[in-house]
Amino acid sequence: MLNQLLQQAKDAQKGLRLADGSRRNQVLAAMRDLLRERQTEILAVNQAEVQRAEAAGLTGALLKRLVLTEKKLAELADGLKTVARLPDPLGQGPRWTLDNGLKLNTVRVPLGVIGLIFESRPGVAIEAAGLTVKSGNAIILRSGHEALDTVTLLTRLWQDALERAGLPRFAVQSVEKPDRQYAVEMMHLTGLDLLIPRGGAGLIQTVVKEATVPVIETGVGNCHLYVDKAADLDMAVKILRDGKVGNPAVCNALETVLVHRDVKEAFLTRAYAALEDDGVTWHGDPEVRRILPQAVAADEPDWANEYLSLDLAAKVVDGLEEALAHIERYGTFHSEAVVTNDYVVGQTFLERVDAAVVYWNASTRFTDGFQFGFGAEVGISTQKMHARGPMGLEALTTTKTLAYGMGQTRDLH
Amino acid sequence: MLNQLLQQAKDAQKGLRLADGSRRNQVLAAMRDLLRERQTEILAVNQAEVQRAEAAGLTGALLKRLVLTEKKLAELADGLKTVARLPDPLGQGPRWTLDNGLKLNTVRVPLGVIGLIFESRPGVAIEAAGLTVKSGNAIILRSGHEALDTVTLLTRLWQDALERAGLPRFAVQSVEKPDRQYAVEMMHLTGLDLLIPRGGAGLIQTVVKEATVPVIETGVGNCHLYVDKAADLDMAVKILRDGKVGNPAVCNALETVLVHRDVKEAFLTRAYAALEDDGVTWHGDPEVRRILPQAVAADEPDWANEYLSLDLAAKVVDGLEEALAHIERYGTFHSEAVVTNDYVVGQTFLERVDAAVVYWNASTRFTDGFQFGFGAEVGISTQKMHARGPMGLEALTTTKTLAYGMGQTRDLH
Repeated sequence: MLNQLLQQAKDAQKGLRLADGSRRNQVLAAMRDLLRERQTEILAVNQAEVQRAEAAGLTGALLKRLVLTEKKLAELADGLKTVARLPDPLGQGPRWTLDNGLKLNTVRVPLGVIGLIFESRPGVAIEAAGLTVKSGNAIILRSGHEALDTVTLLTRLWQDALERAGLPRFAVQSVEKPDRQYAVEMMHLTGLDLLIPRGGAGLIQTVVKEATVPVIETGVGNCHLYVDKAADLDMAVKILRDGKVGNPAVCNALETVLVHRDVKEAFLTRAYAALEDDGVTWHGDPEVRRILPQAVAADEPDWANEYLSLDLAAKVVDGLEEALAHIERYGTFHSEAVVTNDYVVGQTFLERVDAAVVYWNASTRFTDGFQFGFGAEVGISTQKMHARGPMGLEALTTTKTLAYGMGQTRDLH
Repeated sequence: MLNQLLQQAKDAQKGLRLADGSRRNQVLAAMRDLLRERQTEILAVNQAEVQRAEAAGLTGALLKRLVLTEKKLAELADGLKTVARLPDPLGQGPRWTLDNGLKLNTVRVPLGVIGLIFESRPGVAIEAAGLTVKSGNAIILRSGHEALDTVTLLTRLWQDALERAGLPRFAVQSVEKPDRQYAVEMMHLTGLDLLIPRGGAGLIQTVVKEATVPVIETGVGNCHLYVDKAADLDMAVKILRDGKVGNPAVCNALETVLVHRDVKEAFLTRAYAALEDDGVTWHGDPEVRRILPQAVAADEPDWANEYLSLDLAAKVVDGLEEALAHIERYGTFHSEAVVTNDYVVGQTFLERVDAAVVYWNASTRFTDGFQFGFGAEVGISTQKMHARGPMGLEALTTTKTLAYGMGQTRDLH
């Protein structure tokens, strides 16, 4: 079944990549119109789906992410406006001429057909397709089964938006059946130019291990905050709370705080008090537990795992070097932060931590395409190859070098 | 054993990435000095190795690629000079400020530790390490067993060059034992940031399939020349001969010529005559064989395989669309060429062919880091992710975003 979607996507992508940037932007404008015109229908389909999921026992963060609201739709439409206003990622790159007169021109071109496997967060169908349309790619969406009806409807709206702009409908498609076999089929869909998994660690690891098509690893974030002895402790507490409590279920949330021995007492007692009403459970090493007897004992898995919950690991360190070594060992190359007013400590942390985004005196929660001003994101890359951090338009392109000659040959003339 | 090399490489790379660009260039200058100072020794070690390989039965292209000469060393040294003069690939990228005052700065940083598995072409140890040193990376070289002594000596010279510039020796290392187990170990060397296979299709496919570390697929080139009805036939013959005969054993050599029906007779007879003395064997479809009865019958493998020899597949096509369809089916996204004086045909070919480099009226043999002016290449990427075409300095880098805050938080203030 997916082979047919792929063939349709390839054909549609040829039309899209030949369209100029303003035509591709028209699709995004048309989709914004459609989100407004069909808002009642979208919310009704989504609400029915939410009720079914609730009846099936879905609760908490998993239920919450399934819900679309008027406000959420307006935000997603705003994101499309931001994306439409960004420069066209396709087109000119370096030009140079060889001594023999051969003219070379490296241009940026779409990757082709992108597959996206995601969980039951229907807004992803709006933001990801907005980026692929703008960058001249076709996309095949595969959502979690709870969000299938909403995603199917949003896909139809994208297809209508493409038609309104005079472009091929099948540049946006989705897998309309919930069976897991289609996710597996997608991982082996020869001809797919890129497959992006977006969701929890389990999904991502499965895709990275199993896929035979090109994959970008996204989103597992075991993020650390290092509170230096020269930290403004009020700022450190505020950044810790934003990182742990703001939205604990996401990859840019904080999981571990490392605190300098010299400020352990002052910081830990204040942080504990500030987070107490939020229901945070502390997991501490022996030194932390001497100061916070309420903390449970932290073990190896506490350092290594991404809680994605209101749990927080805490450890006392001798200073910057120990903090850097801990992050090097347990970090997942996502987002790491230091709070300090010491210039050398801050600069050294930025220089030496190997992660997509490194923060000095700010919350790790800013690692996000919307926050970064990309209007959307197709995922957050935690690998070094191709793209790193929030993936916007450029991550969906590759290059091609065009060579204009007058009969140049290399060895035989 | 490789774990020790990896640890040494990681430590050395920390020193290298903190060194400024002029210091890294000093290493390349020192290596050029050493190649001159120690030329007699290098050539003697290489000659002994060549004699052993010859005695063991190595001949032809395989033997030839093992040989270093005074001229070849001078060319490699010139390449190092070119690389040293290129702009530093590390450092500044986009800076922007969010509405809340958070300052973001995306910088280009080294990938870390690169592994390179290559065949018995010792010059690779000079050009690849030149690029990794310049870009702040450490490299672990794994050469074919015939070139082991030469590569071991060149590695020592790199280590001396690093020391002369006051940088850590182990930024360039090589596997000094020939056993295949070390190649396998390298493919699974967790912590290696990138593994590049450089050599024949067998080596590359093994690495791509077997490796669990990040890999860039390189170098298989089933390259086509489309001779349009509006071609300058003299130019087409010259480009065909350069592509097929100049150096048939390399990936940017031509493998198939597609000729427009309207010029089949004129082109094929002239091309056959021009290539006759070179010893080219033609493999043709029935229409080609009616014109060139000397051609053997071409079968599916003739369209699909990279000969890397003086064999040439030839096919008559109805025009541009059939040529494009053939290239889409059998091409390997490497280098493709058209010869035509028809503007629409040329532009359409450039637009629609999906390959790293697409040539209009020029030889595919220019797809090469030296030719492109990069001074060297670490390989030619035939994938779309991360890097495409000849990989120079930028392909050996990734990005990191630095975020400078004053206590900014996202949700909780």
